[in-house]
Amino acid sequence: MGALSSDNLLLGDEGRQAGLARALYRTVCDLPIISPHGHTDPAWFALNEPFPDPAHLLVVPDHYVFRMLVSQGVRLDDLGIARMDGAPVEADPRAIWQRFAENWHLFRGTPTRLWLDYTFEKLFGLTEPLSAATATEAYEQIDACLKRDEFRPRALFERFNIEVISTTEGALDPLDHHRAIAESDWQGRVVTTYRPDAVIDPDHEGFSGALDAFGELTGCDTGRWQGYLDAHRVRRAFFRSHGATATDHGLQSARTANLSGADAQALFDRIRSGRAGEGDADLFRAQMLTEMAKMSAEDGMVMQIHPGSVRNHHGGVFETYGRDKGFDIPSAIDYVHALRPMLDAVGMEPGLSVIVFTLDETSYARELAPLAGVYPSLKLGPAWWFHDSPEGMRRFREMTTETAGFYNTVGFNDDTRAFPSIPARHDIARRVDCAFLARLVCDHRLREDEAFELARELTVDLPRKAYKFDEPR
Amino acid sequence: MGALSSDNLLLGDEGRQAGLARALYRTVCDLPIISPHGHTDPAWFALNEPFPDPAHLLVVPDHYVFRMLVSQGVRLDDLGIARMDGAPVEADPRAIWQRFAENWHLFRGTPTRLWLDYTFEKLFGLTEPLSAATATEAYEQIDACLKRDEFRPRALFERFNIEVISTTEGALDPLDHHRAIAESDWQGRVVTTYRPDAVIDPDHEGFSGALDAFGELTGCDTGRWQGYLDAHRVRRAFFRSHGATATDHGLQSARTANLSGADAQALFDRIRSGRAGEGDADLFRAQMLTEMAKMSAEDGMVMQIHPGSVRNHHGGVFETYGRDKGFDIPSAIDYVHALRPMLDAVGMEPGLSVIVFTLDETSYARELAPLAGVYPSLKLGPAWWFHDSPEGMRRFREMTTETAGFYNTVGFNDDTRAFPSIPARHDIARRVDCAFLARLVCDHRLREDEAFELARELTVDLPRKAYKFDEPR
Amino acid sequence: MGALSSDNLLLGDEGRQAGLARALYRTVCDLPIISPHGHTDPAWFALNEPFPDPAHLLVVPDHYVFRMLVSQGVRLDDLGIARMDGAPVEADPRAIWQRFAENWHLFRGTPTRLWLDYTFEKLFGLTEPLSAATATEAYEQIDACLKRDEFRPRALFERFNIEVISTTEGALDPLDHHRAIAESDWQGRVVTTYRPDAVIDPDHEGFSGALDAFGELTGCDTGRWQGYLDAHRVRRAFFRSHGATATDHGLQSARTANLSGADAQALFDRIRSGRAGEGDADLFRAQMLTEMAKMSAEDGMVMQIHPGSVRNHHGGVFETYGRDKGFDIPSAIDYVHALRPMLDAVGMEPGLSVIVFTLDETSYARELAPLAGVYPSLKLGPAWWFHDSPEGMRRFREMTTETAGFYNTVGFNDDTRAFPSIPARHDIARRVDCAFLARLVCDHRLREDEAFELARELTVDLPRKAYKFDEPR
Repeated sequence: MGALSSDNLLLGDEGRQAGLARALYRTVCDLPIISPHGHTDPAWFALNEPFPDPAHLLVVPDHYVFRMLVSQGVRLDDLGIARMDGAPVEADPRAIWQRFAENWHLFRGTPTRLWLDYTFEKLFGLTEPLSAATATEAYEQIDACLKRDEFRPRALFERFNIEVISTTEGALDPLDHHRAIAESDWQGRVVTTYRPDAVIDPDHEGFSGALDAFGELTGCDTGRWQGYLDAHRVRRAFFRSHGATATDHGLQSARTANLSGADAQALFDRIRSGRAGEGDADLFRAQMLTEMAKMSAEDGMVMQIHPGSVRNHHGGVFETYGRDKGFDIPSAIDYVHALRPMLDAVGMEPGLSVIVFTLDETSYARELAPLAGVYPSLKLGPAWWFHDSPEGMRRFREMTTETAGFYNTVGFNDDTRAFPSIPARHDIARRVDCAFLARLVCDHRLREDEAFELARELTVDLPRKAYKFDEPR
Repeated sequence: MGALSSDNLLLGDEGRQAGLARALYRTVCDLPIISPHGHTDPAWFALNEPFPDPAHLLVVPDHYVFRMLVSQGVRLDDLGIARMDGAPVEADPRAIWQRFAENWHLFRGTPTRLWLDYTFEKLFGLTEPLSAATATEAYEQIDACLKRDEFRPRALFERFNIEVISTTEGALDPLDHHRAIAESDWQGRVVTTYRPDAVIDPDHEGFSGALDAFGELTGCDTGRWQGYLDAHRVRRAFFRSHGATATDHGLQSARTANLSGADAQALFDRIRSGRAGEGDADLFRAQMLTEMAKMSAEDGMVMQIHPGSVRNHHGGVFETYGRDKGFDIPSAIDYVHALRPMLDAVGMEPGLSVIVFTLDETSYARELAPLAGVYPSLKLGPAWWFHDSPEGMRRFREMTTETAGFYNTVGFNDDTRAFPSIPARHDIARRVDCAFLARLVCDHRLREDEAFELARELTVDLPRKAYKFDEPR
Repeated sequence: MGALSSDNLLLGDEGRQAGLARALYRTVCDLPIISPHGHTDPAWFALNEPFPDPAHLLVVPDHYVFRMLVSQGVRLDDLGIARMDGAPVEADPRAIWQRFAENWHLFRGTPTRLWLDYTFEKLFGLTEPLSAATATEAYEQIDACLKRDEFRPRALFERFNIEVISTTEGALDPLDHHRAIAESDWQGRVVTTYRPDAVIDPDHEGFSGALDAFGELTGCDTGRWQGYLDAHRVRRAFFRSHGATATDHGLQSARTANLSGADAQALFDRIRSGRAGEGDADLFRAQMLTEMAKMSAEDGMVMQIHPGSVRNHHGGVFETYGRDKGFDIPSAIDYVHALRPMLDAVGMEPGLSVIVFTLDETSYARELAPLAGVYPSLKLGPAWWFHDSPEGMRRFREMTTETAGFYNTVGFNDDTRAFPSIPARHDIARRVDCAFLARLVCDHRLREDEAFELARELTVDLPRKAYKFDEPR
C-alpha cells in the first residue's frame, strides 16, 4: 500500500475476481511501455535538458488540469497561461502551484487525480495528499527532484521502461530533433508520426502558404493535384526514414469521399486558386482521407483517424489565449455513412490498416465495433481523450468486445504531452483491462489461461503489431 | 428491516463496499431536504388544507404512475383523468385505487415502486405489499391518515425536514400564495422560481395575449423589444422579492442565439406584429435564452435549462385530456453547438450560473461533462425525469464525474408535484450517491475521509450553494 | 461443471447474489423454448433431411461467425462463401473448418464463443477447447453426430424442447413447407411470419415484378391502391392460416406517415407507374408501416418493426457475394418523431400490438422505454442482433426497466438461422435475466417471490402472450 495510491487500485481487495485481477496485473505491470500515439516534445529527448519547475511541468501545459480549475472560477491568467497579446500573466510558479493545490479536491473522482497521485508518489516520493497546507512542501520536493540528472528526459524515459514512443509532427516539420536523437549515442526509440492536417485542411490558418512551403520542401508542383499528392508521398517517405510507422488525422468529422480523378483535380484547382465554393473545403478534407488511405495501402503506414471535437468552443478564450486551452468539446458523430466511401474504395485492401478513435461513446457498440468486426483494414483505437479513464475504458471494453473481440483493438494510447504521467496512464489502463478480464473469467465467459494470454497481448503484443513496431526497420 | 423496504436498499448487505455505503448513508440520511426544483403547489402551504383521498393524491395527478397503467391497456377515463370536454370520467376514488392496486406488479423494477413503497411504509404505516387483495385496507389506512392534522401540508413539510422548497410559477403569476406564506406566522421556507416560457415561446397558446398582460402587469411597453426585456427585469425582481433565486426554461431544444440588438429588435417586431416567418419562433426562443442568461449575469438569478422533450406525442390524448398526461417523450438533443452562442456571449462571466439538464443520457459524457468541466458558468443538473432512478442516477455519476468532477454538479432535484414522495426521492438519491462513493473508495480511487465529506456536500452543501440558498436574503 | 462451459456461466459463484441467480435459473432452465422470431428454414422440418457437414452447418451460413474471420484477413473465398458469378471457392469443409478452428481465439469475449462452446459440449459432446490442434477431432466427432437420426431437424426440435418456432417468409412465398409440416403426423409447431418488405419497398430489386406476382397470387388488382392493400389482406389471411400470428418489417428507418386516402393513392400511382420523384420511395415505405399497423389493428396480427441497419456497406463484397455477408452496419436512428404519425393514427387502438426493435442502444432509455411505457399498443423487442449478448442484454434491462417495467417487454428472440445454437442462445438469455433479477433483489428493489415469478414470466409467459401463442388456434 502506497502513501497516495493502493496496490489494489481498480483491482479490488475481496473475493475471487479481485484476486484474479491482481494476479493478471502482476504479470503485466512490469512490461515495457509502448506509446504509439502522443504529443511529447522530441526536443526533450534530443537536448536532454532539465524539465522546468513543478507548475510549468504539471499545471500550465496540461489542459486536463487547468480546465477543471477554470470551471470553478480560477482565471487562466492566474494559472500562468500565456496570452496571445503578450500581456503579463502570473509568472510565479509557486503562486500557480498554490492555486492548484488549494483546488486539488476538485479532481476527486477524475483520472487526473489518479495520474497525478501516482506520479507524486512513485516519481517524486510525496507521502502526503496535496492540499493548501502541503502545497509548499510538495513544490519544493518535486522541484528538487527536477534539478537532478536522473529526472532529465532520457533518464526518465529509461526509468519508465519505454520501449518506443511516437511523437506527432506536422508535414512541414524538418524533424531535426528526431535526426539528432538517431545520430546520438542514446538508444531510446523515439519515432515521429506524419500529421498533415495543416496541408490538408483548407480552413486551417495559412493553408495557402503551407502548400507553397510544401512544394518548396519536396520539389513537387503543389499548384497541381498530382504534384500535391506527390508531395505527400515524398514527405511520408521522409517521415518513415525518421522512424514513422503511422500517420494521424485530426479533422472535425469522419467524412470521406472518393471522387473521380477529374473531379478531385477540379476540386483541388478551385481550392488552390481561391475559387472554392461552399462545401468545397469539407469535400476536400473528405477526399484527402481517402487519398491518405490509398497511400497507406501502398506504403504501409498505419492511418489514424481522430475526429469529433468542436475546437475552441469559446471565441473569446481562443482569441486571448489561442488553441488547446481546454475548450475542445466532443459532439455526436457518424461513422457508418462517413467512412463508407473510403472503405468502399480500399477497405478490403490487405495492405491497409486504419485505426479509428471516437469521442462519441454511442458509436462504440452501434458503429465502430460492427465496422471493425468485419473490415480487415479497420481497427479500434482505445478509449480516447476524455474517455481514457477507468469508467471510460471499462465502457470501451463492455461496448466493443462482444462484436469486435479483443483482436480488432490495438492496446492503449496515452495521447499525452504530460511526460511524467505516462507510467501512471499505462498502469491504469493495464489495471482496467485486467479487472475486465477477471470479470469475464469469473462470469465463466473466458478461461483463466486465455485471460493471462490476453493481458499480455493487450499490453504489448497488440500495440506492437498494430503500429508495426515489430517489423524490421 | 421495514415491512416494505429494507434499510439496506441500494446499499447492499455483504462485503466492505456495502458496509462503507451504509456508513456513508448513516451520516446523510437525516440531513434536511433541499428541494430547489419542483412542482408542488404553493397553495398547499398557504392554505394548509387537508390533502384529498389516496387516489386523488397519489394516482390521478401523477403521470409517472398512470402512464404505466395506460401502457398496459387501462383507460385514462377509468383512472379519473379529467377530460377537456367535461364528459364524465371515473369519480369513485376507491375504484381508481383498486385498478391501481391490481396493477401494482407493473411497477416492479421502477423507481415509482420504490418511492411509493417507501411512502406507504414510512408515511402511512402500511405493512403489506399493495395488491388487489390489500387494496381496500391500504386505501382506508391512508385515507384515515390524510384526515388527521399531522398530515396537512405544513405538518408534513416539517416532518419531512425540508429546509427549503422551490415551486415554479409562470411570469404572470401574482404569487399570492407565496406572499401569504411569507406573511403568515409559519416558518417554512417556500420560494418561487421564474418560469417565463409562456411569454417567451411564440408557439405557446395565447402568446400574444400573454405579452399584453405582461405589459399591463409591469407597466412596460411590451410592444417594443426594449420594453419587453424591461418587463422581464421587472418580473424577475418581483419573483426575487418572493424568495426566488432561480429561473427555469423548459423549451424543446437547447438552441441559443446572440443576435445584434437591431436584429433582435427586428425579430421581435416581426413576431409581435404577426409577420413572423418560418424559423422566427425558433430563433426567438434561442435569442431569449441568451437574453435570460445576460439578465442572470446581472441580477444573479440561477438559470435552469431543461430541454429535450417532445410534448404531447399523441394528438388525440392531448385533445381529449390536455397536457402532462405522460405523453412527453425525450428525443436526441445537441448541446455543444446549441449552447455555443450563449456561452460565447456570457459563458465566462463570473456572475452567471447556468444549470443544464438533459433527457438524452448520451450527452452526459460526450457534451455536458466536457462543457461543465471548463465553463465557470455551467453546472450539471442531476439525472432528470425518466432518469432520476437508481440506474439513471448511477449512470449520471459514472458518465459525468471523470470529466466534470463532483463540484460541477448541484445535488438532487426531486422535480415533482407528488409531495408525499419527496422524502423517498431524496432518500434514494442519497443512497445511490453513497453507493457510488463507496465503490470509488473500494476501487481505491478516493479516500474514505473524502467520501464522507463528499456525501455531505452532495446532499446539502452543493445544492445550497448552487441555488444560492446560503446567501443572505 | 462442463468441459467447455460452467454451470455458473453468467450467474457467478460467490455470495448471496450469485446464489439467488442460480436458484432463479434452476426454475427456468428446463422450461420450453418459445422462439417467436427467427430465420430457420421450414424445409428442415418439412423434409427432415440430415444437416450438412460441420463447416456448412456452423461456419459458412453464419455471418456472425465468418465476419470475425474476415475482419482479421481471412478471405471470404477461403471460407467457402459462394460467389455470385459462380467462380470456385473453397469447397473442402475440412479446410474451412481448419481455418475457423485456427482462429477460434478471435471469438474470446464474444457471444459466438459462448453459443458455440455450449453447442460443442452439450450437443456434440466435445470435451476439448477448439484450436488448430483439436480441429480435426472436433470435425470428425460433429460430423459423425450429424449423420445420426437423432440429429435430424425434427429430433433436434424435440430434444431442444421447442414449444413453437416462427420462421419468416416473404409475401409471395407459397408456404409449401409449412403446409407439409401441418399435414404430416409430426406434432412440432412451426409457424410462419408475414414479411412483405419485397412488395413494400420500391427500392427493392424486382419491386415492380413482385407487385405483378402479388396481384396474380391474390386475384387483386395491384395496379391500384385499394387492390394493392387488399392483396396484403389476402396474403395476411393466408399466412394466418399457416399459423402466422405476426408480421415483420425490416426497413432501414422507422419513419411512418399517415397520408390522406387521396394522397396515398396518388403516391402509389406515381410509384406503380414509374413516375416516382425523389423521396417518394421513402414516403411510401413510411405510409405502408401505418397501413400495416391499421391492418394489424383489424386482423390481430402482431407487428414487428426492425429498423436501423445500413445494409451491404461494402459495394464490392455485395457485388461479388450478395446480401447477408456480415456487412450490415447499424446507424443512429430516431423513433420519437418517426413513429409519431403511426402512433397518432392507431397507437391507442386496443387491438393493435407493435413490437419495436433497435440496433441503436441510445434509444432504449431515451425513446423506446418512454414510448412503450405509455402507448398500450407498443412493446419492446429484446436486445437484438449485435446486442443479444451478455453485456447487450444487461444494458437492455438496465436502460428500459425503470421506465417501461418488465411487462412492456416480450421475452427473448433468438433471431437466428443457426438452428443448433438455439438452446445456447435461450439459455444465455435466461441466465442474464436471472442475474439481473438477483441483483434487483440483493439491492432490495424487488422481493424474492417477485423475482421467481418474473423469471418464469420473462422466459415463457410474456413471449406466449406477446406473440399470441396462447390464444386458441
